[in-house]
Amino acid sequence: MDKNKKILLALGGIVLVVIFIVLVQLFARTPYTTIKLANIPAGEYDPAVWGQHYPLEYQSYLRTKEMAPSPTGFGGSEKVQKSVKEPEILVNFKGMPFSVDYTEDRGHVHAMDDLRETKRINQATPGACMTCKTAYLIDFYKEKGWGYAKTPLAELLPLIKHPIVCANCHDPQTMNLRVVNPAFIEAMQRRGIDVSKASREEMRTYVCGQCHVEYYFVPADKKVVLPWDKGLLPENIYDYYSTMPNGFAMDWKHPDSEAGMLKAQHPEFEVWSGGVHAGSGVSCADCHMPYMKKNGQKYSSHWVTSPMKHTKEACMTCHNQGEEWLLNRVKTTQTNVWDLQRTAGQTVAKAHEAIANAAKMTSSSKEALDKSRELVRKAQWYWDFVAAENSMGFHNPSMVLNTLGRSIDLANQAIISAQKASGGK
Amino acid sequence: MDKNKKILLALGGIVLVVIFIVLVQLFARTPYTTIKLANIPAGEYDPAVWGQHYPLEYQSYLRTKEMAPSPTGFGGSEKVQKSVKEPEILVNFKGMPFSVDYTEDRGHVHAMDDLRETKRINQATPGACMTCKTAYLIDFYKEKGWGYAKTPLAELLPLIKHPIVCANCHDPQTMNLRVVNPAFIEAMQRRGIDVSKASREEMRTYVCGQCHVEYYFVPADKKVVLPWDKGLLPENIYDYYSTMPNGFAMDWKHPDSEAGMLKAQHPEFEVWSGGVHAGSGVSCADCHMPYMKKNGQKYSSHWVTSPMKHTKEACMTCHNQGEEWLLNRVKTTQTNVWDLQRTAGQTVAKAHEAIANAAKMTSSSKEALDKSRELVRKAQWYWDFVAAENSMGFHNPSMVLNTLGRSIDLANQAIISAQKASGGK
Repeated sequence: MDKNKKILLALGGIVLVVIFIVLVQLFARTPYTTIKLANIPAGEYDPAVWGQHYPLEYQSYLRTKEMAPSPTGFGGSEKVQKSVKEPEILVNFKGMPFSVDYTEDRGHVHAMDDLRETKRINQATPGACMTCKTAYLIDFYKEKGWGYAKTPLAELLPLIKHPIVCANCHDPQTMNLRVVNPAFIEAMQRRGIDVSKASREEMRTYVCGQCHVEYYFVPADKKVVLPWDKGLLPENIYDYYSTMPNGFAMDWKHPDSEAGMLKAQHPEFEVWSGGVHAGSGVSCADCHMPYMKKNGQKYSSHWVTSPMKHTKEACMTCHNQGEEWLLNRVKTTQTNVWDLQRTAGQTVAKAHEAIANAAKMTSSSKEALDKSRELVRKAQWYWDFVAAENSMGFHNPSMVLNTLGRSIDLANQAIISAQKASGGK
Repeated sequence: MDKNKKILLALGGIVLVVIFIVLVQLFARTPYTTIKLANIPAGEYDPAVWGQHYPLEYQSYLRTKEMAPSPTGFGGSEKVQKSVKEPEILVNFKGMPFSVDYTEDRGHVHAMDDLRETKRINQATPGACMTCKTAYLIDFYKEKGWGYAKTPLAELLPLIKHPIVCANCHDPQTMNLRVVNPAFIEAMQRRGIDVSKASREEMRTYVCGQCHVEYYFVPADKKVVLPWDKGLLPENIYDYYSTMPNGFAMDWKHPDSEAGMLKAQHPEFEVWSGGVHAGSGVSCADCHMPYMKKNGQKYSSHWVTSPMKHTKEACMTCHNQGEEWLLNRVKTTQTNVWDLQRTAGQTVAKAHEAIANAAKMTSSSKEALDKSRELVRKAQWYWDFVAAENSMGFHNPSMVLNTLGRSIDLANQAIISAQKASGGK
């Protein structure tokens, strides 16, 4: 072999090694698996049927059945009464169903069981209550329009075979994300947002946001309305309710304070909206349905649960500080929120009592009593907006803590005003 | 040229290109410039002398002279009375010097001018007051030990030629970071931390933390003490003061409520300690003295100021969301803090008034009045701990907002208790 040939071979070898390394780098990256579409018929709501075509997603969805406390110690998927830890709930919701039965939320697979078993429903409960519990909403709304909402729930229940399933968020033919709750679509429309034109990344929040929101039923026809016309902040929604749209003025009158009260419902979407994750373009699914891998196949986890149960996949794609560190940060924030949430809730409870005591005295000023009632209504709204939201403040800590601070102030003002009404007795 | 030669040349060319790219990548990284040590004599406190050897650091230090509001609208280096924006300061500090003169903090270069000009000092002011205003502390402490602290300030002032300068944080021979405030060294020792064994990264916080802390003067000898023996949280320090160490019980008695009050001093180190930046190993200097480049020379900015004045260098080495985005996030957090800070401060002011009114009535219960006084003392401490801290809560938002929420609750409880004391009159 002449010298040139030797050098040629050596250089050729180096070039081959370089090419090999480049190719390994390229192929080591996760391939985007092309999913073969299954062409599932519209109206097929059995997740097991979808699961034959999308087994990884289905297997992870089934894990929403699991019941466990959250790793941070706050919330979690468990059927326990919230009043065990927060007895002030029994005072603050006195005279309405949430004082009778108010459990922690469980996973999607339990949605219909929990609706059937709750002590909050009776023969008069309207169909509107199943709006967010099942994909059968799609059929009911197609058939009756908003008429389904005032149909008695008892009439609809026997027709419902499945809870929140694949069809709530996916088009069965294209597998594209979709929203099916007409209340969400209408509320977004009133805010000038056409949901049908949303990007995929926006849809990864909207499919969750269509249900994880504050809502009320219009008294006359039980239509579900998301009260967002003035904005998404707790004060915006309070303002909205104070204008009493559609004849709605209160959820119930508190039997002790006789204040006209509001009940907040899990405003996750609203709280998230102003937070740092929303501001960074991080969707609900990014953290609650992170990408996983099994046998080389990438899939989105459908075990919708606390991100702290899979911190590595949910958080560590952006935050590289390690699982224990991240858990501790979340715990620290949530502990600060929990502390003020308890103070707010307990002060609200004291305010109901103070107003009731003041009202018993015939000498009490009606004007001062009414002022106290308005104060406790608002204080409880601010407390409940946070307490009913399922992140113990994590979705937007500074807004939530500010809201609780205001609740504490308002509840105390209600007590001061009640004391004045009765001349300090 | 035969075929082999041509291939040889082509392959040789490819290898050369690859090697060139690798070399460019390696050399494009910022070189760590070796600084030639200047061997400045101990006792040289004139920053201009140091500046001859370290011109970039000196030029940036001189910018601490600049006066401008902070880009977020909160704080900033300006000589304006805080009471313009927060008139409740005039009520809450009534009867003590901070109601007479309480300006925003200005840059390091102004420290001695501000000490000389403040209306808070008089002939009785002890030397302890200059502890954190000048490098001459080094000489005074060497000469007199803690004796300097009870020497009248008026006696020390003529000896002081320079404010906070290079020597406060740097050893003149080695340029190593050092701390010179004996109060900091002793307080850390009591917490089991030997400052002389600190890492460089820790020193990048300690040099700031030696002064940006809560402190008090022991009544007998004016020795400066950082009250950290029970921890760094506002409740830990309140507990410490409640045990009245060294005969210290209060800073002054409020003339309206007659409560024994505490004044908080800029606890930046304490607040930062529990926050996400401390938890991530980010030092004070990382954000407030970021690395800059001039003519290819890397240096640490000595224009110690709001990081929002150089967001790119201060924040964007870790946070890549863009300057406007970052500014808006900080503003959002600070606005939530400011809102509760005002509510807390104003409610504290109302509490002083309510207690004063109740005390005027001879029928008022002494026990209930004393309870109110303890409540307003604690409420004001929690408010002041945040209000006196120079980040409008940014250094640890969830802890700070929690602290303000508790302040609001305590101040309202003081009012309720005062109302009860006087039978609601």
